Amino acid sequence: MPSSDFHTQHSPFGAFASFTIGLHGARGGFGQALGGPAKQNVYVGWRTVGGPWQMLPFFEPPQSKAVDYTGTAEESSNALWRALPPDEFTRTLGWASDTWSTGGLRFAIYSPFDTVPDPTKLSREELAFLLSPSQAVELSFDNKARQETVEIMFGIGDPDNPLRPVADEDPQLAGFAMGGAWGFAAKAGDITRSVQGFSVFDSKFGDEKGLHRIASDGAIIFTVPAGTEKHFALTLGFYAGGTVTTGIEAGYYYTKKFDRLIYVLQHGLEHHAQYAALAELRDAELAASGLNADQQFLLAQATHSYLGSTELLEREGDPLWVANEGEYRMMNTFDLTVDHLFHELKWHPWTISRTLDLFLQRYSYRDTVHSPGGRREEGGISFTHDMGVNNQFSPPGRSSYECTGLDGCFSHMTAEQLVNWVLCACTYGLHTKDSAWLTKHEETLRDCASSLHHRDHPDPRLRTGIIAWDSDRCGHGSEITTYDSLDVSLGQSRNNIYLATKTWAAWLLLEKVFRLSGLHGDAADAASTADSCARAICSKFEEAEGMFPAVFEGGNQSRIIPAVEGLVFPLFLEMREAFARKGRFGDLMSKLEKHLWNILRRGVCLDEKTGAWKLSSTSTNTWMSKIALCQHVVREVFPSAMNEDAEAADAVHAQWESTPGCGAWAMCDQIESDTGKAIGSKYYPRMVTMALWLKK
Amino acid sequence: MPSSDFHTQHSPFGAFASFTIGLHGARGGFGQALGGPAKQNVYVGWRTVGGPWQMLPFFEPPQSKAVDYTGTAEESSNALWRALPPDEFTRTLGWASDTWSTGGLRFAIYSPFDTVPDPTKLSREELAFLLSPSQAVELSFDNKARQETVEIMFGIGDPDNPLRPVADEDPQLAGFAMGGAWGFAAKAGDITRSVQGFSVFDSKFGDEKGLHRIASDGAIIFTVPAGTEKHFALTLGFYAGGTVTTGIEAGYYYTKKFDRLIYVLQHGLEHHAQYAALAELRDAELAASGLNADQQFLLAQATHSYLGSTELLEREGDPLWVANEGEYRMMNTFDLTVDHLFHELKWHPWTISRTLDLFLQRYSYRDTVHSPGGRREEGGISFTHDMGVNNQFSPPGRSSYECTGLDGCFSHMTAEQLVNWVLCACTYGLHTKDSAWLTKHEETLRDCASSLHHRDHPDPRLRTGIIAWDSDRCGHGSEITTYDSLDVSLGQSRNNIYLATKTWAAWLLLEKVFRLSGLHGDAADAASTADSCARAICSKFEEAEGMFPAVFEGGNQSRIIPAVEGLVFPLFLEMREAFARKGRFGDLMSKLEKHLWNILRRGVCLDEKTGAWKLSSTSTNTWMSKIALCQHVVREVFPSAMNEDAEAADAVHAQWESTPGCGAWAMCDQIESDTGKAIGSKYYPRMVTMALWLKK
Repeated sequence: MPSSDFHTQHSPFGAFASFTIGLHGARGGFGQALGGPAKQNVYVGWRTVGGPWQMLPFFEPPQSKAVDYTGTAEESSNALWRALPPDEFTRTLGWASDTWSTGGLRFAIYSPFDTVPDPTKLSREELAFLLSPSQAVELSFDNKARQETVEIMFGIGDPDNPLRPVADEDPQLAGFAMGGAWGFAAKAGDITRSVQGFSVFDSKFGDEKGLHRIASDGAIIFTVPAGTEKHFALTLGFYAGGTVTTGIEAGYYYTKKFDRLIYVLQHGLEHHAQYAALAELRDAELAASGLNADQQFLLAQATHSYLGSTELLEREGDPLWVANEGEYRMMNTFDLTVDHLFHELKWHPWTISRTLDLFLQRYSYRDTVHSPGGRREEGGISFTHDMGVNNQFSPPGRSSYECTGLDGCFSHMTAEQLVNWVLCACTYGLHTKDSAWLTKHEETLRDCASSLHHRDHPDPRLRTGIIAWDSDRCGHGSEITTYDSLDVSLGQSRNNIYLATKTWAAWLLLEKVFRLSGLHGDAADAASTADSCARAICSKFEEAEGMFPAVFEGGNQSRIIPAVEGLVFPLFLEMREAFARKGRFGDLMSKLEKHLWNILRRGVCLDEKTGAWKLSSTSTNTWMSKIALCQHVVREVFPSAMNEDAEAADAVHAQWESTPGCGAWAMCDQIESDTGKAIGSKYYPRMVTMALWLKK
Repeated sequence: MPSSDFHTQHSPFGAFASFTIGLHGARGGFGQALGGPAKQNVYVGWRTVGGPWQMLPFFEPPQSKAVDYTGTAEESSNALWRALPPDEFTRTLGWASDTWSTGGLRFAIYSPFDTVPDPTKLSREELAFLLSPSQAVELSFDNKARQETVEIMFGIGDPDNPLRPVADEDPQLAGFAMGGAWGFAAKAGDITRSVQGFSVFDSKFGDEKGLHRIASDGAIIFTVPAGTEKHFALTLGFYAGGTVTTGIEAGYYYTKKFDRLIYVLQHGLEHHAQYAALAELRDAELAASGLNADQQFLLAQATHSYLGSTELLEREGDPLWVANEGEYRMMNTFDLTVDHLFHELKWHPWTISRTLDLFLQRYSYRDTVHSPGGRREEGGISFTHDMGVNNQFSPPGRSSYECTGLDGCFSHMTAEQLVNWVLCACTYGLHTKDSAWLTKHEETLRDCASSLHHRDHPDPRLRTGIIAWDSDRCGHGSEITTYDSLDVSLGQSRNNIYLATKTWAAWLLLEKVFRLSGLHGDAADAASTADSCARAICSKFEEAEGMFPAVFEGGNQSRIIPAVEGLVFPLFLEMREAFARKGRFGDLMSKLEKHLWNILRRGVCLDEKTGAWKLSSTSTNTWMSKIALCQHVVREVFPSAMNEDAEAADAVHAQWESTPGCGAWAMCDQIESDTGKAIGSKYYPRMVTMALWLKK
């Protein structure tokens, strides 16, 4: 029986909002712009009338707040409910759904996602359907075999906030809301009664409608007569009006269509069947994908968390896209953008071009660089690590993350983000065939090429194609990579094989784009740089060991899987000729293949104890998003390296993400490879790199 | 040495916002629309350069969040700071200020309040000055005697949210903000540097400005050279834009003038001196009031908490007043309105008339009533207990609190709220001489008189003047009073001496208003009802014991101080003739005096153990707001009853509110009289009844 003990984010597109649920005995519920699960009790269960409620375990045992008013503690009877143990229910996570079944009860949350065109091109109806900050829920009960009437419940308890009945605002609806921020609703005609009290199980006090409006537990109850089967539609809605960001002032794009929560709830119920059908279509696509069950689970969970970090804003009429960075809430972290690329190119490619434009307009800068020996020269254009944090856009040319004078975490990622802009821009332009956009950015791409050269060496004769100089933005420190917290094998930017192959890929893509643009001189330069970069990497191969070192300096002997990460871009663009063993980069490919043969072994880059993929032989800190990406490269480019042990790790990774060590924070990226416990990057979007698996 | 170990709310007028600080070792800071203190660290301290910071104890020891990013826990050096023990600093709470002094450091928060006219009559400048959601802070250091340079710090750490430097938005300012919601600022030219990091004491990482923008600790540092004394101005600002309520949709009135946080901060600094001077004026007024030190402390703390619950909204251009109910956040709870009356009549009487109008328009209803025997008759007009909760206005004619079928807490308060509307309306009209308003409401007052009669007895010949029937809104239950959770002595509405004397006062005021209006028949009826009510109360006097019972049925033998509560209205209106021992109500006054003589004794209505006033002889649940009100009546009307023990209790009450038993939640109302621990009604506005003490 697979574990059902993990949180999942159920998130509409672009609302930076999640209904989080699933971890046993834990709270969750409606959260907006949070770095982790909200703290509400979620009440879902059933009973035969008069019997105890059989509840899915998504709440902390109620402690009546009546004592705060009456001064006298009251006993709540435990006979009124029981929390179902894990062996009494099943859970199935689909690509766009999450379903629990117990007794005759079926509780499904649908998180449909779809292709979203640039919102400026949407009709009001399309905009409403695609951007509605709502989620569809279906509660069903098969009571055909029973002789007794059954009641089913859906409710929320927010210990910090009294709720309000949504019927106050629309008598056609039943359900509860917290102010104008979030709520749930069903059709009033579908429910038997509403409960609001200090405990949904034991609401001792009620007004003329049976509600106690000062209380923070609210539920709706449906009835299923004996011998029948019933299906009830509910909607979960979020809302945040007005300006929600600083630095750049913007509000949610969905507010163009919805000007308050009740309209979201109405819309959600009206289109409930369409949302459910869309979710089922996505589920069916994943089921038919050919991925194994572990991979399907991982991609489903990853997509859910990705959506929870998406934020589509409106600034003076224009769409403004932000992918937030999970628990850290950094905005459009560039080393996530480059990983989200593959998913976004499928579903909403315009978010990439708009984000690249914003990087260029507001978050680019020009620097000087220095050699390891301290020689100082002109650098060139690059881009910041992120655009701010916690809905606070940072000033132009500055990230929220990068600091000066450091050699590790929080240093600058100048070279890497330069490479990332080139890779994203070329991949976007080539994949979508948006030649107008590419043409518009020709000069910037040439600027990027020049900046890349300067970071290799200011003297063209001494260039190898590998980044070897550091930005002066680092002060007396040095540049790092996105793998900031992993270990030295991946941490430094200079002379790092991870960044070297990624740089090689950047030159390869530049070559193609320049050639298509008729910039033959630039194309030739890019081609020769790609060639020399490949040669330079090959020269670092340790024939005796049959492996590359992670870092080409300081006698480093770490072995890393992301040596092949950069290959994902030409692979995605179907530039298969780059991988030909007897072709232009035959030597590099052969050496990378040997490298993989030798490192994808237990005790090297498969964890000795668990068998999980670990990015570096010298660290137990491993990242799920990058494992997924590199697995795709290995499977597609180096299938001979995908040995039985390496293949078997899917089950380990799925087990990690579906048990509380990671699952307490929905999808997690940074994981300790010998324990499976999340050590950072929780509630995180980046694992949507798994979308690559569908490309096979 | 008086205790300094208590939280105080520092709150601008009408912003439903508090900067809460003062409890030792506890968090607080900026809270908006909360039912208790916020959860931020507040960093205030000084050091000689290079030495450890000497910090006021308003934070929890920092635990660096760096580990969440780096995966590696770092040790923070304890040598960098120390939390000052209570004997190393002093605290002085003024009516509109709160000042801590230690070493040469002086840290003062000013919470000036002033007469606020109806905001529709304010100029834009007056509106800005009176409604600015800001607080002035002054940090001073007297370094005249030292040979070393001193640094002083003000900072905030919000564990849940990275901050942003306000200089991003206005380079003339220094300080930090959390999104658009709150922040603090000083003039950029006044500070030496800003710190933002995982710990203000040990910020290891910084960008080109020394800031680490992903971190949630932010502070500004000032320098005081040896041999000098410096004073620095800071402002604390709050902001919430857009619609903030449901049911009735409204936003904060201050948004008419300020359209974002930065303008609030700029305004606060520009007018810092005026705000500080206004606060000092209020402080001086309290100091000159003739109240003893305990009374001054209590009134100061009460006024602070009152302001934290005030909320001035704008609905379609009109002001909409809400006094929130402390931790419960019920809106315009009527039994608080009637107690806030005396303070509000001094500072902003229009909030009363507007609130009474809203009660009449939206929160009035007509009911039927029943006798204890079950006979059913027409009732009449009355008013709901409140207007909603948690910024959620309840539907017309309905409160958030009142339920059906109950005899205790959460039942209806129909008769009491009817009495309250009459008392508030007449007191407002007579005190402010707003005869136009009174004239407009003549019919309503006649309606109220009729409704009062029906609740006494439908047959005029059987009326006593005392409420004896219950509203059918109670179903099979019965009405309660505001003293819901106290005990049976005060809980029931019917035949209760507390409500009886309050009803007597209502008839007395109606008599006066009707007479002024030329409604002579109504005036005569009111007069005769007041007379008969007084006679009826007198008839319940137990001559042998020299006391009244609390409830005139069921053999009740409780003794209660609020037997005299109703007298506060004619007292406030200077209707001294009502109290003449040989006058119209001489018998009632003499009997109440005897009652007080006998109950204001240890073991009866002074707590046996602590000596505190306790409202009922049969309960240890006692309410500070009502103690204060009744003390005023006793001192002014029955000074002979104010014996030494009764007088000495001020010190007990002040000690309660200035130590953590109550002080953990700023001002508290419901207190256990034998322990001094708050048992409800925390973070509460109602104790502003103490404003009556200034009337002597």
